Amino acid sequence: MYVENVHLTEDGYAVEIIDQTLLPGEKRFLQCRTARECFEAISSLRVRGAPAIGIFAGYALYVLARQIPEEPADGFLPRLRELAAYLDGARPTAVNLHHALRRMVSLAEQNRFLARTELLAILRREAEAIQMEDAAMNRAISEYGLSLLRPGDGILTHCNAGPLATSEYGTALGPLLLGQERGYGFHVFADETRPLLQGARLTAYELLSAGVDVTLICDNMASIVMGQGRVKACLVGCDRIAANGDTANKIGTSGVAILAKHYGIPFYVLGPSTTIDLSTPTGREIVIEERDGREIAEKFFEIPQAPAGVKCFNPAFDVTPAELITAIITEKGIFRYPYQDRFAAVFG
Amino acid sequence: MYVENVHLTEDGYAVEIIDQTLLPGEKRFLQCRTARECFEAISSLRVRGAPAIGIFAGYALYVLARQIPEEPADGFLPRLRELAAYLDGARPTAVNLHHALRRMVSLAEQNRFLARTELLAILRREAEAIQMEDAAMNRAISEYGLSLLRPGDGILTHCNAGPLATSEYGTALGPLLLGQERGYGFHVFADETRPLLQGARLTAYELLSAGVDVTLICDNMASIVMGQGRVKACLVGCDRIAANGDTANKIGTSGVAILAKHYGIPFYVLGPSTTIDLSTPTGREIVIEERDGREIAEKFFEIPQAPAGVKCFNPAFDVTPAELITAIITEKGIFRYPYQDRFAAVFG
Repeated sequence: MYVENVHLTEDGYAVEIIDQTLLPGEKRFLQCRTARECFEAISSLRVRGAPAIGIFAGYALYVLARQIPEEPADGFLPRLRELAAYLDGARPTAVNLHHALRRMVSLAEQNRFLARTELLAILRREAEAIQMEDAAMNRAISEYGLSLLRPGDGILTHCNAGPLATSEYGTALGPLLLGQERGYGFHVFADETRPLLQGARLTAYELLSAGVDVTLICDNMASIVMGQGRVKACLVGCDRIAANGDTANKIGTSGVAILAKHYGIPFYVLGPSTTIDLSTPTGREIVIEERDGREIAEKFFEIPQAPAGVKCFNPAFDVTPAELITAIITEKGIFRYPYQDRFAAVFG
Repeated sequence: MYVENVHLTEDGYAVEIIDQTLLPGEKRFLQCRTARECFEAISSLRVRGAPAIGIFAGYALYVLARQIPEEPADGFLPRLRELAAYLDGARPTAVNLHHALRRMVSLAEQNRFLARTELLAILRREAEAIQMEDAAMNRAISEYGLSLLRPGDGILTHCNAGPLATSEYGTALGPLLLGQERGYGFHVFADETRPLLQGARLTAYELLSAGVDVTLICDNMASIVMGQGRVKACLVGCDRIAANGDTANKIGTSGVAILAKHYGIPFYVLGPSTTIDLSTPTGREIVIEERDGREIAEKFFEIPQAPAGVKCFNPAFDVTPAELITAIITEKGIFRYPYQDRFAAVFG
């Protein structure tokens, strides 16, 4: 259904992405070849969404591995680890980036005695596997998510966890896109998601393109829309889920969860099980990325819209406590609070 | 302390305002002389904030009254009523606009047998009285509000209810500006307040100008800041308070109140008692202004940040239920839930 927005170029020398910072005004493809270009694509959110970053990282490490000099042969692994560590620093919160890089490096370690050509071929297949697995997980997540919704439901979503952020259907948008194919007729409210407007620029764009009835609202309008009885469920993605179910996702998600609880609306987190990080006991241990305050005061605006020199606080994520989450939906099924024991049983 | 941002020109032929739509980039004064100019200044938010709109309306009606032809003498009142009705339609939610116009027209009705010059002089003094009363009320509100806060407190505020929105100290910002003069050392978090960014453009500007320690955040960051324990109280203004205490204020206010309740933080509404409208039984009867969706998708941006043709829902206000409001602070004192009976006793 969707062209994958992260893929290798045909010659295998670059990872190509849709530059998400230019959407919805312009759909421009960008090729990343050097370590610095790959790092910048992640840190500047040209590629974004935890699963998409993981997929990108797999391909990026393959592209960069090809550039490691043939000699000395034992220089390959140290350099690969160095490149992985460098890319891993591009964004701290999402677990998928770390996982994908770790997975690529481990595979190289296990196969370090293979000839370089073979080793590179294995790394390429592994990167492709990361993407295919993500697509398969998203199909399963979409089906499970859809099972919780009814035709005609009003749905509120925050940030973007659609095809651009993942692969194929996406996670939080998956049930909506799948439902659209099956005539569910959802009415979706998309939070614009300040400061980077992923809801306005990406979610509204993806849903509108798929023909879904979507209404764009400012983040601070979620309360009135819920209060008017127009929202039957909230669907959001996730960047890291702790062992107890506490979930890091785009800034503002915890606020949506609190409003949903107040209004008695179910609040669902959707993501692949790779987002569950059992080594992180609770949300308190999740590092929250803080970004440049100019993203609030200046970015996107024709002229700055805050007084010069004002301090800004710009956390990119927040943590929603597990007890506010009605269910966490992964490719392995629907989990309900309390999460700790079932997570440990299924994923431990 | 502050130059009043709404005032008559020296010759009395125009109301002069700071065009708030250009702040903080440019401080430009604008003179309104015709009914259309006055209407546009209100509807386009060049003058905004419920009390400031009331003050503006008083002066505007005086300026327009001067232009009513001398003959026929009995044409004065009908024309004045027509002008008042026209201005009253510029914004539907705030009660102050309606009150100020009603007050001016009533006074003219009571004095309809006076000579035109005398009648005009009375109207001018009445408009001045509206402003002076507002300033006096704001001083009292600021003192009452400050009595609820402690030195060093972290405070969250939404939208703008400072000097620009009112007169002198303002309402919600009054305790903060007064506290600043008295060395309280507050740490203020200002919600930017989408879509029109009154928090970023006006509140941050006013507090920074006064030397207050202010940090600008996006509306969706209120939850994380509260969760970090950095907020000891929320202060907001109001556009209309119903007889039961339900309060209409800038969109997003109800969400802040719900978050405050969740985190156990007191939530205070500050406003002159003229904002209390006993003829409106509850929040359900308050008409919520819906504005052009392009304010969300296009305004302020260098290029539109949402896909062309997407639907937007853009309510300018929401209603915070009385039970979420810890106290309502007026010039007559501090009222606590339930409000109905004490409001009726004091203002009925």
